[in-house]
Amino acid sequence: MPAALQIAVDAMSGDHGPSVCVPAALNAAKQFTDIGLVLVGREADLRRHLPAQLPANVTCLYAADVVEMTDHPRDALRRKKDSSMRRSLDLVKSGQAHACVSAGNTGALMATAHFVLKMLAGVERPAIIGAIPSHGGQTFMLDLGANASCTPQQLAQFALMGAVVAGDLTGNQRPRVGLLNIGEEDIKGHESVQAAHELIGALPLNYVGFVEGHDIFSDKVDVVVTDGFTGNVALKTMEGLARMIAGTLREEFTRSPIRKLGALAAAPALKALKTRLDPRRYNGASMIGLNGVVIKSHGGADLFAFQRAIELAILEARKGVPSRIAEQIEPVA
Amino acid sequence: MPAALQIAVDAMSGDHGPSVCVPAALNAAKQFTDIGLVLVGREADLRRHLPAQLPANVTCLYAADVVEMTDHPRDALRRKKDSSMRRSLDLVKSGQAHACVSAGNTGALMATAHFVLKMLAGVERPAIIGAIPSHGGQTFMLDLGANASCTPQQLAQFALMGAVVAGDLTGNQRPRVGLLNIGEEDIKGHESVQAAHELIGALPLNYVGFVEGHDIFSDKVDVVVTDGFTGNVALKTMEGLARMIAGTLREEFTRSPIRKLGALAAAPALKALKTRLDPRRYNGASMIGLNGVVIKSHGGADLFAFQRAIELAILEARKGVPSRIAEQIEPVA
Repeated sequence: MPAALQIAVDAMSGDHGPSVCVPAALNAAKQFTDIGLVLVGREADLRRHLPAQLPANVTCLYAADVVEMTDHPRDALRRKKDSSMRRSLDLVKSGQAHACVSAGNTGALMATAHFVLKMLAGVERPAIIGAIPSHGGQTFMLDLGANASCTPQQLAQFALMGAVVAGDLTGNQRPRVGLLNIGEEDIKGHESVQAAHELIGALPLNYVGFVEGHDIFSDKVDVVVTDGFTGNVALKTMEGLARMIAGTLREEFTRSPIRKLGALAAAPALKALKTRLDPRRYNGASMIGLNGVVIKSHGGADLFAFQRAIELAILEARKGVPSRIAEQIEPVA
Repeated sequence: MPAALQIAVDAMSGDHGPSVCVPAALNAAKQFTDIGLVLVGREADLRRHLPAQLPANVTCLYAADVVEMTDHPRDALRRKKDSSMRRSLDLVKSGQAHACVSAGNTGALMATAHFVLKMLAGVERPAIIGAIPSHGGQTFMLDLGANASCTPQQLAQFALMGAVVAGDLTGNQRPRVGLLNIGEEDIKGHESVQAAHELIGALPLNYVGFVEGHDIFSDKVDVVVTDGFTGNVALKTMEGLARMIAGTLREEFTRSPIRKLGALAAAPALKALKTRLDPRRYNGASMIGLNGVVIKSHGGADLFAFQRAIELAILEARKGVPSRIAEQIEPVA
């Protein structure tokens, strides 16, 4: 009997390719015995990382080509029809898989997913949504980079879609939705944000109005809506700052033997800090608005991080996030 | 003989008003004996915080009104002509002061400064520029919120103005200028960023091309140019994340008596971290493109932070940043 849900894993993807993707999928297969994992990639590369005897819920699909990080999205789409990325998405399209995970080229994945899976009826633009650690737990944010500029109507649809994702992934059916702006007064921000504010206010959402950059980390909002330019800059800014703080901490704690002793004494607290804010725990952004579950892992993901992306794919496949979005979406005039 | 340079201090401004602004100005007066400080505010409020005998280089200008944080910029401009903010700017306009510092309402300060001082010839829009701690030292970023949307021509002028400020404040006369975008490939980003990229590339600047959010903290760029919406969101996002990390550190280091002991042992490293990344050291953003030096302090600034903003005003007044910008600016077609 085939497993109920199948997850296609683009096993050639990311900085580490099959050396990370394959063991992560094998771990997931062990943990989720009711889920099938389909490893997609070059035969020789997959074999190198697979045990002689495949687990019962793991299968392979061979694909000759690989989308490189430097490939232009259009070229990946047109010329790499036998890539592991394309084949993974084809599996979702044909219904043989219920979700796809890739750590590959974001632009190529979005373009190919958009082309292969198509958008859900009524959706104007797909978006990328991800979770960000906040003081209260986590905040979902979208769009993280699929759309450099957005109309107010698109932002309003992102609000609807984001609320579905946050609801399905956290169980909170009334997630607080906020619109990112540069001031809390209604007078600020540009026209498109003002217009989106009106549109979202009229939707059946738990809309808390405008929020600012610092609110992402507060316990004030569960879903932050913005255009893909601002969202991507904010996300990369967080990553850069977190890295700089971690680097400075490391420098200061290794500056002298006394400092190193101090680090030893402080190790439990520092470890707890690292665990709570570990970006690997939040790995996996969802490309939503499409006819299928597509999870984009960070390119640099390690075993632990890529496994989290697979788990996210399993959760969204189980919840049927795309059909839940299709139910909720409405054309916003 | 009057002091060579006079700095007008809006002593009623910020969350703490004269209780912070007055002692900060007195400290600056003690440190910079060749500079005059003009304290502007309500007589009774100033007197409460001043010594019986004023230092030789400190004077007072009484203003009956105060611009509140909640005032609409337009109302502050039209109705509060005897506010400490307005009087401070009037001093710069008349040439009695060479710079003005305020921790007040950003929108009101920008609107009033724009109205009172006017823009430098050739400048299309004023902008707000600030320094952000980076791994190499600091990165200047503009616009931080004066213009929610910007034309490519305005972004190109920001690049020119930002290079002047970075050059004057750091002594590096070939600062590397980058344009914030969501991907390093030329294909990404929206049209206005693409057009700005072309314009900036043609200017006599050390232009390094597109940079991403994480590059702000790297040693790759000295001046990051973006629109005021993106810049403000990025800045607030940094503030929020830094606060969350600091809060989490505090929680983890006070969780148990053992953890507190660990914190004690780690205190020198933690203190060094705090010093290096202390946002108070970077307090003071400059409103540039105007006929005069205007420094906006963070509203919540304490004594140390507000003093840094005054020092920034002194430095910009000494360098004559506005006339340096006027020399460099060119209409960008």
